[in-house]
Amino acid sequence: MNVGKVLLVGAGPGDPELLTLKAARVIRSADVIVYDRLVPAGILDLIPEGAARINVGKHAGNHPVPQHEINQLLVRLARSGRTVVRLKGGDPFIFARGCEEASELERAGIPYEVIPGITAAQGCAAALRIPLTHRGLATGVRFVTGHCRGDEPLSLDWASLADADTTLVVYMGLANIERIARELIAHGLPADTPSCAIHEGTTSRERRICAPLALLPAAVRAAAFDSPVLFIIGRVAAFAAGWNEHDSALQQDMAVVA
Amino acid sequence: MNVGKVLLVGAGPGDPELLTLKAARVIRSADVIVYDRLVPAGILDLIPEGAARINVGKHAGNHPVPQHEINQLLVRLARSGRTVVRLKGGDPFIFARGCEEASELERAGIPYEVIPGITAAQGCAAALRIPLTHRGLATGVRFVTGHCRGDEPLSLDWASLADADTTLVVYMGLANIERIARELIAHGLPADTPSCAIHEGTTSRERRICAPLALLPAAVRAAAFDSPVLFIIGRVAAFAAGWNEHDSALQQDMAVVA
Repeated sequence: MNVGKVLLVGAGPGDPELLTLKAARVIRSADVIVYDRLVPAGILDLIPEGAARINVGKHAGNHPVPQHEINQLLVRLARSGRTVVRLKGGDPFIFARGCEEASELERAGIPYEVIPGITAAQGCAAALRIPLTHRGLATGVRFVTGHCRGDEPLSLDWASLADADTTLVVYMGLANIERIARELIAHGLPADTPSCAIHEGTTSRERRICAPLALLPAAVRAAAFDSPVLFIIGRVAAFAAGWNEHDSALQQDMAVVA
Repeated sequence: MNVGKVLLVGAGPGDPELLTLKAARVIRSADVIVYDRLVPAGILDLIPEGAARINVGKHAGNHPVPQHEINQLLVRLARSGRTVVRLKGGDPFIFARGCEEASELERAGIPYEVIPGITAAQGCAAALRIPLTHRGLATGVRFVTGHCRGDEPLSLDWASLADADTTLVVYMGLANIERIARELIAHGLPADTPSCAIHEGTTSRERRICAPLALLPAAVRAAAFDSPVLFIIGRVAAFAAGWNEHDSALQQDMAVVA
């Protein structure tokens, strides 16, 4: 039997229309789709009738499929001669463990291709109209994860992250946002740095909060934000649609807090 | 007359199939398309017959259209009631001056929307199979520009950039790659840090060079790379397809150089 192939495909940030043309094409021609819980529902509608669907979402029945089993599943499916689309939320190579799967396919001699996707930072920035870079305000942008594996403490280089000239985007940071805000401020980032929290950006369930960094954690807790949440921290966040109202309301709070 | 609207649209990294479904839809329904020289030719083929095309590409006849004139053009076209698609290479909010146009539209009261695009870092990473983040190798990724305005010297925080745990992606850095490599190494990034230079990634004209950081500038000059070039610097670059051959050949050079 001929060996099949695997396409590691980014499904984008939430809005199904933010899928690429290439991703849509390969989904339509797949024999099997292996997907995550973060893949937007509208994208699953593109899957052809005859194709098998395998949900390896981490929350499926509280029995997440471990990464090494996903790796083996992809190898097994491809060896059976199938065209396998491995769909991941966002971009497969940004906080998505795409390389772990790619390395396993490489070792097994399975042909594969990587198709990028719009990552949450881009989707949320466009939705809120926050430029990730902007002359005079942000010479660059960086993406970090605020999530740690198991019981490990969050290990980030705070001094380097507390850089007013760089837009900081934090993925998966909801559980640790108090510590993140505290450390950034302790390491020199101004307490009034414009910041936004976005839940399910680009979808109909999108929620957003804009606040000075010092007030962001309390605002997020007060609004009972649930995962996934993306944080955009930096001067450019002041461009967020609706920043001004939030800002003036929150500046009053800040005056009270101060 | 009713006022029109402007869509600030990311055209992606080069491969026309890396356009989003949403971008393709709005291009097909546009009255006018205002585009840059970095917009892939294949994407211009999507422009409907009846739509006007305006090339504001910086190299058009050596008479670039200044940014403030582009801003005013968008306002004027929208005020005439048209649906205007402003197409930019990559993502409008990553090193693309999208916010300057958005701010002008905001001031003029013109409705607008931002549609993200796959940025060069993602396109090149997928093409070369380099994960931008990877557990144990890169806890995050950052994008900076290696280009400076006019005669200004390149002003980057080298100590912060020389971080072995973060993947560094440099846009528009060809002219300054010697200085970039030298400063990163002087500030502590190992001289053998895996690095790649990619010219026109994701297109049929793609060229790539992988080398230890210390040898990258010479390798890029020897190969006579032309703009645009993207640099990916960090441990993850060792995953690049073809890294091993390049590496062993270049390690010999390095031994000679050392």
